[in-house]
Amino acid sequence: MKIGFVIYDGMTSLDFIGAYDPLTRLKTMGFLKNVSWDVCAISEQITDDRELAFSPTQVGTPLGRYDLVVVPGGYVTRKIRYEAPFVKWLQTMEPCPFKASVCSGSLLLGAAGFLKGKRATTHPTARVELAEYCAEVVDQRVVDEGSVITAAGVTSAIDLGLHLVEKFAGFDVKEKVRRQMDYYG
Amino acid sequence: MKIGFVIYDGMTSLDFIGAYDPLTRLKTMGFLKNVSWDVCAISEQITDDRELAFSPTQVGTPLGRYDLVVVPGGYVTRKIRYEAPFVKWLQTMEPCPFKASVCSGSLLLGAAGFLKGKRATTHPTARVELAEYCAEVVDQRVVDEGSVITAAGVTSAIDLGLHLVEKFAGFDVKEKVRRQMDYYG
Repeated sequence: MKIGFVIYDGMTSLDFIGAYDPLTRLKTMGFLKNVSWDVCAISEQITDDRELAFSPTQVGTPLGRYDLVVVPGGYVTRKIRYEAPFVKWLQTMEPCPFKASVCSGSLLLGAAGFLKGKRATTHPTARVELAEYCAEVVDQRVVDEGSVITAAGVTSAIDLGLHLVEKFAGFDVKEKVRRQMDYYG
Repeated sequence: MKIGFVIYDGMTSLDFIGAYDPLTRLKTMGFLKNVSWDVCAISEQITDDRELAFSPTQVGTPLGRYDLVVVPGGYVTRKIRYEAPFVKWLQTMEPCPFKASVCSGSLLLGAAGFLKGKRATTHPTARVELAEYCAEVVDQRVVDEGSVITAAGVTSAIDLGLHLVEKFAGFDVKEKVRRQMDYYG
C-alpha cells in the first residue's frame, strides 16, 4: 500500500501528523510490510499556518500512483480551493482508490470534485462551505463513504488515521496501534 | 512568553505537534499577544522516527532563554539519554521556569537531572526507565509538579498542551482552544 500525505503552505500540522502517526505505524510496528509513503507538495518547502517548515519527499508529482491520499486542512483552504494549479494537482488523485481528508481539507477534496453525491464532514466552522460540494454534511468524527473518507476538526485526524488502520488491517491491529499511541478516543 | 520546542533525530512527531498546536494557538487565536516560539535542535535538519524532515529555527542555541521548553519522546530516547553533547544541551534549560515533556521525553528531562524528587509520567512502556530519575512514576495523562510538567504516551501531547494553555491563560481560553481543535479529551 502506497500512501501520499499532501502538505501545502498554510496547512494545520496536526491535521497531517495526527493521521500520519497511526497510518505509518502499520509499517513501523510491523503489521503490513508493503506499506510505504511519500510527503507530497507542489513546492520544495512548505510552511504550516504557524510558519513551521516541512520538506516534502515528492514535489509536483502526480498523485494517481497512491492507494490512499490524505489531505489536511487549514484556514487557507477557503482561499486555495479556488487556485487552479493546486486544484488541478489534487485532481491527479482521481485514480486513487481511497481519498481522505481532515478538517477543512474536505473543501479541497470538494473543489477537486471528489465529494459529488457523497456524505462528508469537516471542521465545525467550515460546514456551510462544504455543503457546496457534497450531498450531505454530517456531524461525525469520521464519515466513510467507501472510497472517500472525511474527518471533522483538527484532532479528528487521529480518529481518521485509526479508522483507516482498522479499514486496512482490522480491529485488533487498530487496537494495538491505539494503545501504543496511548489514545482513548 | 517564549516557548522552545525541542526536536531531535528519531523523535515521534505527534509528541511535538500535539503540544505545539494548542500552545501556539495562544498567539494565533489572539489570547496572548506576547507569545513567541522557536523550534530548537542541535543540527540543521532533523528527521523523525519515520524519516519525516523538519527544519529547526534555532540550531545549537542554549535553551535558558525560554519561559517554557517542551521535549517530545521517541524510542530513541532510551539511547540518546546517554549521549553527553545532547544531554548537556538539554541542561542549558536549567534557568527556564517551566520544563515539559511528552511520552519518553521525560527520560530526557530525567537524564538532564530535572526530575529529582519529583513525580512524573511517561509512555506506558518507559516506566521502569523513568523510575531511575524521579521520586514517583505516576499513571496519569499529565503530571504537573509546578515547574516540571510531564505527559504520558504520544497523544497525551494534546492534553499537555491544553493543560499548559489553561495554566498560562485560564480555563475559558483552554476551552476555546479545545473546541477549535475539535477535541473532547
